[in-house]
Amino acid sequence: MSKEFFTREENYSEWYNQLVGKADLAEHSAVRGCMVIKPYGYAIWEKMQAALDKMFKDTGHVNAYFPLFIPKSFFSKEASHVEGFAKECAVVTHYRLKTAPDGKSVVVDETAKLEEELIIRPTSETIIWNTYKGWIESYRDLPLLINQWANVVRWEMRTRLFLRTAEFLWQEGHTAHATSQEAVEEAERMLDVYSDFAESWMAMPVLKGVKTANERFAGAVNTYCIEALMQDGKALQAGTSHFLGQNFAKAFDVKFTNKEGKLDHVWATSWGVSTRLMGALVMAHSDDQGLVLPPKLAPFQVVIVPIYKGEEQLKVVSEAALKIKKALEGKGISVKFDNRDTHRPGWKFAEYEMKGVPVRIAIGERDIQNNTVEVARRDTREKETLQQTDLENKIAHLLDQIQDNLYKKALDMRERMTHKVDSYDDFKAALDKGGFVLAHWDGESESEQKIKEETKATIRCIPLDNKQEAGKCIYSGKPSTQRVVFARAY
Amino acid sequence: MSKEFFTREENYSEWYNQLVGKADLAEHSAVRGCMVIKPYGYAIWEKMQAALDKMFKDTGHVNAYFPLFIPKSFFSKEASHVEGFAKECAVVTHYRLKTAPDGKSVVVDETAKLEEELIIRPTSETIIWNTYKGWIESYRDLPLLINQWANVVRWEMRTRLFLRTAEFLWQEGHTAHATSQEAVEEAERMLDVYSDFAESWMAMPVLKGVKTANERFAGAVNTYCIEALMQDGKALQAGTSHFLGQNFAKAFDVKFTNKEGKLDHVWATSWGVSTRLMGALVMAHSDDQGLVLPPKLAPFQVVIVPIYKGEEQLKVVSEAALKIKKALEGKGISVKFDNRDTHRPGWKFAEYEMKGVPVRIAIGERDIQNNTVEVARRDTREKETLQQTDLENKIAHLLDQIQDNLYKKALDMRERMTHKVDSYDDFKAALDKGGFVLAHWDGESESEQKIKEETKATIRCIPLDNKQEAGKCIYSGKPSTQRVVFARAY
Repeated sequence: MSKEFFTREENYSEWYNQLVGKADLAEHSAVRGCMVIKPYGYAIWEKMQAALDKMFKDTGHVNAYFPLFIPKSFFSKEASHVEGFAKECAVVTHYRLKTAPDGKSVVVDETAKLEEELIIRPTSETIIWNTYKGWIESYRDLPLLINQWANVVRWEMRTRLFLRTAEFLWQEGHTAHATSQEAVEEAERMLDVYSDFAESWMAMPVLKGVKTANERFAGAVNTYCIEALMQDGKALQAGTSHFLGQNFAKAFDVKFTNKEGKLDHVWATSWGVSTRLMGALVMAHSDDQGLVLPPKLAPFQVVIVPIYKGEEQLKVVSEAALKIKKALEGKGISVKFDNRDTHRPGWKFAEYEMKGVPVRIAIGERDIQNNTVEVARRDTREKETLQQTDLENKIAHLLDQIQDNLYKKALDMRERMTHKVDSYDDFKAALDKGGFVLAHWDGESESEQKIKEETKATIRCIPLDNKQEAGKCIYSGKPSTQRVVFARAY
Repeated sequence: MSKEFFTREENYSEWYNQLVGKADLAEHSAVRGCMVIKPYGYAIWEKMQAALDKMFKDTGHVNAYFPLFIPKSFFSKEASHVEGFAKECAVVTHYRLKTAPDGKSVVVDETAKLEEELIIRPTSETIIWNTYKGWIESYRDLPLLINQWANVVRWEMRTRLFLRTAEFLWQEGHTAHATSQEAVEEAERMLDVYSDFAESWMAMPVLKGVKTANERFAGAVNTYCIEALMQDGKALQAGTSHFLGQNFAKAFDVKFTNKEGKLDHVWATSWGVSTRLMGALVMAHSDDQGLVLPPKLAPFQVVIVPIYKGEEQLKVVSEAALKIKKALEGKGISVKFDNRDTHRPGWKFAEYEMKGVPVRIAIGERDIQNNTVEVARRDTREKETLQQTDLENKIAHLLDQIQDNLYKKALDMRERMTHKVDSYDDFKAALDKGGFVLAHWDGESESEQKIKEETKATIRCIPLDNKQEAGKCIYSGKPSTQRVVFARAY
């Protein structure tokens, strides 16, 4: 804690980098662009996984596992997919090493060259649809609702922990349907699951919308997305759900016999969220003192720190603390009791503040005499002294309050940072203030592209159920029927 | 179900291959040596993961995630590790593809060649110990008790679903300790966890022992293992736990300041089990009618099949079935109600028999009149008619019985197939019958090697707490102090 710690104001980007390190979430590895997710960070990811996995299963999905490797030729089967994905990839060319002439190091065995190179999956549509071909014959085999938890690799030149790494962890759902309508409904259902997860678990409000053609997933007919706003006013795409039409079914020749006995290509969706959500979570709520975690995703929701002098006092205080721990756990609250004798209470306070533990309880001998504890909440950094009586219910209520407050705070911020503009000058000024900018757009890729080049802003989404109103494109002045959401983005 | 299905007697190996396919557990993918784990197979793996993960956490471990890639040079840092592991590996040499001159396919971009090749992890000791160097300074940082769930790749020429695949899923624990004794205790503790899991969850009895020097993990001082016996009399190594001494700490220069203020290298363990356990599970209990699953690992423990004619009857029967389902679920039993109108009851019976569902309940109109159901258990294939009254407790009890019976049956088989021999001729005859062969061995690698060459049998382990008795090596005739466990193995 001794090193300098940037505030968000001073340098948001450095604040984020330092925070990820100091809160023990992740670090760079010896392999360029690849991260190590540390135990505390991974525990948060496990909570995210568990919540999402349950939501997927509750909506009828099952998990499976497909190969890490994809034959190179698969990428050329879907025309637009190859453009979008088969570029910055890790390529396996050999399958053996041998001892070098020096007898100490190893070198690639040139005789062990693969006939066809294998690509580490950047996403699995191709290998999965190649597999589905063997699984689908008739409408009775549909829908096929499968999800996979996996690692994927997209070679990136400029990486940032969680936000953009060469290897990352994610889930990818791949579903097959008998009709276009069913597939569209599925894509929208999963968008709702993502939005529900972001808002209810991450306490992070999101806009639901569709991407413009420019920003669509390579191979999709329509890409749905959820977009969040970070504290520095930049947008972050937090999840996408794609309606793939029959594109992959056609590329991999996946047909089924429908109820009328006719052959047709299958309709598809795919959808995913990744460890990028960890970056979003950090940036959405944290402050200049460190991480702030929503209680529902905190590895432990409460930490109890004993205040004592000498072993005798520690024993008495520990007894009381363990009783409180047990009562809280009885209410389903996760609790860490930190009775380490190697660190002082003040050090521990700073440590758990940095790690974003939602509630800290301090208890000393005087508290025991008064039947009290000192309770500090991480989000507002307020402290109060509470009677121990019924403490478990008070804390349970406080955790709910914190979860709600984080959401509300983030929503207030988003509202404060959402600007409606009607001219290109106002548009650029609004972008410089940061936030979502709602502006009229003529629907042309060319205007979109020009705006991006001139301002670095992209259309984050066209909101679902967008209000239709007549206006003029801020760039071209051509007539427009609706405002879309622009922002600079991660 | 219409295709020919080999019995175990006819062709054990083909029986296994067919079963894995017909029970919908896994299949070969388009990538040589890599498998697709299908939803039903993956659901079993998820149950295994959940049970193991809880056992790891209950013994103080936390999860983390380390990179998929390992720089080639890391493999030469630990002398014996390089020999054992840096050979049949997938090697990444390039990081970009480009559109081919034909404009349709993609080719490797030769300008995007990595300076140092990256190896897909075959196991992660090297990258993890390189990371631990930054995490360990003092005895206060120890022990470090970390596990990782991940995919690994070992290029294999001859592969079999689950038993030997190029890519497989596993967990790998990597721990760091202040003393040799603590590390040995950890390695033994995790062996106990594995043995407990194999016996209590998989209903598969295992021998606990240590490997001979020949069979040790590359880089280990001592390799502990659990060994199971399959129905064809071949042994299967189901899990290993390694005491690594200070080998990796020295290779990656990981030192700590001990309580006395002196610098010392850290002591290490690593331990792992993989999707190979799925193969063991299949082979341990299944029969000529299909898979047999222990209730604790079955994706669903009970299937209810309605017997009916016409929609009217289905409605009445469904109502009764759903009531039973609810009552069973109230006891924590997982239930599938298969009311599909596209398949006949007989087809469903065969399907769930093939998939190893522990208990099948059939219910028709006559049952409703008599307040009965027909209950069939998968392990013994016995059927009985039971009164519906208190059915949930009867089924809960039956599931326990099935779990116990599978273990007992496997244990009986192992006892029947364990032979004590005192001459090389008897040894060879016993091997041909199949099973574990307990024989005296002089402790020399040379005899071990010769026996392997001549009989294809290996020393599976030297059991923990092995009885010491004087004898003569079956191969060399030299004096021996104990019998060791030989077998032909997967």
